[in-house]
Amino acid sequence: MTKNYLMTPGPTPVPEEIRIEMSKPIIHHRTKEYQAIFKEVTDGLKKIFKTSGDVFTFTSSGTGAMEASVVNVCSPGDKIVVVRGGKFGERFGEIAKAYGIEVIALDIPWGSAPCPADIEGILKKNPDVKGVYTTLCETSTATVYDIKAIGEIVRKTQALYVVDVISGLGADNFENDNWGVDIAVCGSQKGLMIPPGLAFCSVSEKAWKAVEASKCPKFYFNFKKYKKSMLDTDTPFTSAITLVIGLKKALDVINKKGVDNVIAEHAKQAEAFRQAMKALGLTIFSKSPSNAVTAVNAPQGIDADAIIKTCKTEFGVTFAGGQETLKGKIFRAAHMGGIDREHTIESIKAVEAALAKLGYKFSAGSGVAAAAKIMG
Amino acid sequence: MTKNYLMTPGPTPVPEEIRIEMSKPIIHHRTKEYQAIFKEVTDGLKKIFKTSGDVFTFTSSGTGAMEASVVNVCSPGDKIVVVRGGKFGERFGEIAKAYGIEVIALDIPWGSAPCPADIEGILKKNPDVKGVYTTLCETSTATVYDIKAIGEIVRKTQALYVVDVISGLGADNFENDNWGVDIAVCGSQKGLMIPPGLAFCSVSEKAWKAVEASKCPKFYFNFKKYKKSMLDTDTPFTSAITLVIGLKKALDVINKKGVDNVIAEHAKQAEAFRQAMKALGLTIFSKSPSNAVTAVNAPQGIDADAIIKTCKTEFGVTFAGGQETLKGKIFRAAHMGGIDREHTIESIKAVEAALAKLGYKFSAGSGVAAAAKIMG
Repeated sequence: MTKNYLMTPGPTPVPEEIRIEMSKPIIHHRTKEYQAIFKEVTDGLKKIFKTSGDVFTFTSSGTGAMEASVVNVCSPGDKIVVVRGGKFGERFGEIAKAYGIEVIALDIPWGSAPCPADIEGILKKNPDVKGVYTTLCETSTATVYDIKAIGEIVRKTQALYVVDVISGLGADNFENDNWGVDIAVCGSQKGLMIPPGLAFCSVSEKAWKAVEASKCPKFYFNFKKYKKSMLDTDTPFTSAITLVIGLKKALDVINKKGVDNVIAEHAKQAEAFRQAMKALGLTIFSKSPSNAVTAVNAPQGIDADAIIKTCKTEFGVTFAGGQETLKGKIFRAAHMGGIDREHTIESIKAVEAALAKLGYKFSAGSGVAAAAKIMG
Repeated sequence: MTKNYLMTPGPTPVPEEIRIEMSKPIIHHRTKEYQAIFKEVTDGLKKIFKTSGDVFTFTSSGTGAMEASVVNVCSPGDKIVVVRGGKFGERFGEIAKAYGIEVIALDIPWGSAPCPADIEGILKKNPDVKGVYTTLCETSTATVYDIKAIGEIVRKTQALYVVDVISGLGADNFENDNWGVDIAVCGSQKGLMIPPGLAFCSVSEKAWKAVEASKCPKFYFNFKKYKKSMLDTDTPFTSAITLVIGLKKALDVINKKGVDNVIAEHAKQAEAFRQAMKALGLTIFSKSPSNAVTAVNAPQGIDADAIIKTCKTEFGVTFAGGQETLKGKIFRAAHMGGIDREHTIESIKAVEAALAKLGYKFSAGSGVAAAAKIMG
């Protein structure tokens, strides 16, 4: 039987020990037993976000928490800056528009990171901006942004700094408090190693002041309701109980290793994968490659989707494709959560085998050798 | 070892075969394999809702879908009628107020069902009402409403008919299309036998016209985005994949038996439980008891929470308590989803044992005998 290797940037593979934990008989959520679990989860998330502020857990996909990060701090008519360098950056802008919030877009070429000075310029011209919205890792282009440098600029202004860390957290370094982030938005199905269905927002003191002034209507994603429920170590609406139980196990694993060690492991796997692709003569799409996910340019004359299809059907390795204008041009491999050394090597072997089948010339085994050398 | 019997009206026990299904390695959602599962789930839900219209699946708790049923069809300044006879009826009103929608409340005593003529009166006085919002089973009081009779009235007006079937579906009879329901709102953790984390809305043709005119801001819960994604048998944002996979199994089980047979089974269990309580000399709180959940009045001089605590700690049976003014006065037992004959008998045995411990006089075994007689 072919083993399956899920290399997509969400969902990532859920380790067996976590799946077993989630498969136990369900418990009721208004109990001391569940409250203890929820408290551990909240504390565990704070360690990974590197924050001493609030972290709230929503039952929703990551987009729900993105909406929460807009509607809880903005009012109709406000202006926000949105960095648009891929599909997920664009989403912040779409949410803002749905709520009558003006978007000042910083459009950058897909695969590039924003220049902090450009953000500084926009903020100088528009001192009334309510928030700067960006991503840590823009998944669609596998590009990591310099969140620390942008934070140095935004923290000196009245604007809030909102970062979508959905794909990056646990693979690319992230320091919520040290970098001056006011709201970080995350999802469960990437670096946190559980299935999709939970989403998270950190909320800083500076953000709470904006919450008080916000006039966007909201109910399900209302931060104030989550803050109030937190007094009873609870959520205002029924949590996805089994996912929270799985998350407790995942956070135990990550925090026992130490999040910095987990990030270092993934960074090594990402580097191994990139060097393997280069050894095969392929190039990396992004100018600022993330450690959470790598986008590889298909060689001239070969459709990236043919590589993906061959890897999936013949070798059980699932990569993600390019989106919109990148369709057929790139394939993407993740390096976070439950994706480990075995996944990395097996996926490189599959790329080699697929490329050989598709008539691409390269030195067989050179990719795997380059990766093995780095991973040790 | 004590076995555990979860008798709460959500979450209900998740049968082992469904838990095993959900514990398999996760698959990616943008695949033919997942699309086929999602199509089966959507078709299966339509059978249980008894609708030929749309049914959308959200990753959220039931409250998220309640919000969807308001913000997709209303505009700020609109008026809606909300039947308030318990905690969940009140929630529709709170959501509406958060979006600047005027609420005409039909307040009824907790434990009573609304009188359809009262709703008719309100609609005559207020011909501009946008929608009538009510629950099928008001979980907090274990009361079922006459949704069919109210539907006869509302369908003759321009108002939409929105019903929260979160607790009732699969236990109390419900016929979306025949009864003229425009939006039915449901959750996953009750009659549908899976953990919390998914929520659903049916949407009628009449409701779609209101969607076009609606001016409430929305993004994550926007029906139009779900409708568009349904063309690709997909959701606009990442689904809670494992829960959808579990739901497919649950729907297979329910639809193989036939939803009407499942409802008849639960009705028999509910009747058995009620007759057991009466045989013990206890009384039922609701004037219109639901088959999804029963609220039992604690006998004079005994705290309902003491009964609940004894059942839980000594016999592994978890009941729900009364909320707000009913705290300490009632205990609630569910009869839906994975709650079966064994649960029913074991929970009655626990009530008998707890009452005996708490000094209440009754004929030992009379409750179990009454229930066994009905269940056959």
